Amino acid sequence: QLKMNLEQIEKGGYDHFMLKEIHEQPRAITDTLRGRLLVDEAIIKLSGLENNMKRFLNAERIIIVACGTSWHAGLVGEYIFEDFVRIPVEVEYASEFRYRNPVITERDVVIAISQSGETADTLAAIKLARSKGAFVFGICNVVGSSITRENDSGAYTHAGPEIGVASTKAFTTQITVLLMMALRLARAKGTMSSADYRMNLQELQLIPSKMEQLLSIDENIKEIAREYMLSTNCLYLGRGYNFPVALEGALKLKEISYIHAEGYPAAEMKHGPIALIDDRMPVIVIATSKGHYEKVVSNIQEIKSRKGKIIAIVTEGDTTVKDIADHTIEIPEVSEAFTPLLTTIPLQLLSYHIAVMRNCNVDQPRNLAKSVTVE
Amino acid sequence: QLKMNLEQIEKGGYDHFMLKEIHEQPRAITDTLRGRLLVDEAIIKLSGLENNMKRFLNAERIIIVACGTSWHAGLVGEYIFEDFVRIPVEVEYASEFRYRNPVITERDVVIAISQSGETADTLAAIKLARSKGAFVFGICNVVGSSITRENDSGAYTHAGPEIGVASTKAFTTQITVLLMMALRLARAKGTMSSADYRMNLQELQLIPSKMEQLLSIDENIKEIAREYMLSTNCLYLGRGYNFPVALEGALKLKEISYIHAEGYPAAEMKHGPIALIDDRMPVIVIATSKGHYEKVVSNIQEIKSRKGKIIAIVTEGDTTVKDIADHTIEIPEVSEAFTPLLTTIPLQLLSYHIAVMRNCNVDQPRNLAKSVTVE
Repeated sequence: QLKMNLEQIEKGGYDHFMLKEIHEQPRAITDTLRGRLLVDEAIIKLSGLENNMKRFLNAERIIIVACGTSWHAGLVGEYIFEDFVRIPVEVEYASEFRYRNPVITERDVVIAISQSGETADTLAAIKLARSKGAFVFGICNVVGSSITRENDSGAYTHAGPEIGVASTKAFTTQITVLLMMALRLARAKGTMSSADYRMNLQELQLIPSKMEQLLSIDENIKEIAREYMLSTNCLYLGRGYNFPVALEGALKLKEISYIHAEGYPAAEMKHGPIALIDDRMPVIVIATSKGHYEKVVSNIQEIKSRKGKIIAIVTEGDTTVKDIADHTIEIPEVSEAFTPLLTTIPLQLLSYHIAVMRNCNVDQPRNLAKSVTVE
Repeated sequence: QLKMNLEQIEKGGYDHFMLKEIHEQPRAITDTLRGRLLVDEAIIKLSGLENNMKRFLNAERIIIVACGTSWHAGLVGEYIFEDFVRIPVEVEYASEFRYRNPVITERDVVIAISQSGETADTLAAIKLARSKGAFVFGICNVVGSSITRENDSGAYTHAGPEIGVASTKAFTTQITVLLMMALRLARAKGTMSSADYRMNLQELQLIPSKMEQLLSIDENIKEIAREYMLSTNCLYLGRGYNFPVALEGALKLKEISYIHAEGYPAAEMKHGPIALIDDRMPVIVIATSKGHYEKVVSNIQEIKSRKGKIIAIVTEGDTTVKDIADHTIEIPEVSEAFTPLLTTIPLQLLSYHIAVMRNCNVDQPRNLAKSVTVE
């Protein structure tokens, strides 16, 4: 009895922890940025990075290891780091990395990402990398967790406790940390102009308020959810920075609604998945105006000509996609590298509402554990 | 009329080109190896590689670019090259690589893989890589195709014409070329002992006869196909060398049967996909005795405890998995790096039979083109 009451209080008026955590993201990201992003001074302060600047600047390669949602954050990180810092990045499933005799040297920097800091495969990957002399930097949420103790250095996401099994605010705060790291390194390496750097810091600071604005369209997404709640299958497509967001969107739907959803880089559609498309297949396409927009529009046209249903995530003011897609969801205008922080939100909400309408146990989906602490 | 007759003749007694091409693989691989694999002299002769040995030996990184099935061959290549040659390998979707401002230098070697040699995104990726000074090596099947003319060097797969839209023998011959390249480079770099090298050459030479032996169990696979022909969804799991095979197996089923199938590295299952599993979800697991067998066995047990149906690909003589799985398909004993050449075969046959039973147009699946020559 007491526990139920406590839980209700902890949910802060929301029906589920997941919904609470989705809506907490503007605040969570503000917490991630607090004391680290100093826009007026044009400074990013991450002591774990600052104290090891040489290792990062001399790195020949960055290897990101993670599992599940954190692996998707790592894929976004690949785009961010290669774009901003011009260092080659490899993203690996921790479970594959640890067992495949990877080529790794003391000149490599490994970034390990894990919400819980207890993920068994990621922990083992860190130990392997350190045994070969690599420098390991951890991005975790839970303070004092095993990974934070096994690392050479790291940064917390400061997202606050994440109770819902399906990760939401952990994902966006992980990306926020990666963005700060890449911006700091880009300045140090001189791969970004001072003007661009300052502009990016300002963009980053505006993210929480843009997220807040985006979260207000929840009712709109609920209506779309009602239309697709009985779907058995679903495709998620994105390009560039939003290809990993497509993977993450599909994972969310899978985890909590048990609908078989799959993410793909949009251009790969023609190499197979397009065969699946018919009038019962909803396709969620991320078509923000920054990411090779025309290419994605052409993908959307192909899907429509095969009678697929399109739910498109577009930039506000878009008209082209609106004319073709069955539904559009608008995100506020933002530079390409920051779009994942916004495009993720409607996908989280869509999964949430579909799962609730299907009477699924949103916060504790069947078969899943919050952290995978055994192999 | 005449065309029909010609087609029947061309199918060589098989109902479909795809089935013919599946059965042609032992001969196709023999053709790929002919004049190149000289076991008695312990020599691998690939002139395109030999003439550019310095570029390969000085490479700091190998980047493999491809689309669709060829991308899966590239993923197998990553495991082969890192294992044998100890060079870091990155595998990229050509469509993502070309648009994402990748970090690439004149010290990188790019391997581009394409059956047709006409894949638009792969061709564009090659041009980008060469413009940045990288050395580009092509692996193609169609002689004189665009990619073979845009490359710095390359090797043909010599698989013969592939007519079925779903790629089969192109995939296994691409892997065969990658194996030969890695073995030659391993000898040149000294990363493999002379004894291991000779043993591997012998293993490679025995592949066609082992494939032949494997193809004889076609009837057995037909029976399994009958049981799952009405499935709407399917998961494919593998680890290490057989993780890309799981992806490829899922793609085959998607392409020709329109069943939503998805591949995953087995350990990632717990980070989401396991939520999908119930008694209507067949899960194909590659559980050969070489690839972290016990780990895969534990994955199988978890799936069974959630009432999933298991079709397992095992090494002949296996008893552990046989006791747990609903169906097992045996492959002949072979070293781990060579298993993809064998484990692929039953997955091709399974997709083929399921598609035929569903009355799908196996050789020309809806919405798909044999080569994607436009974006």
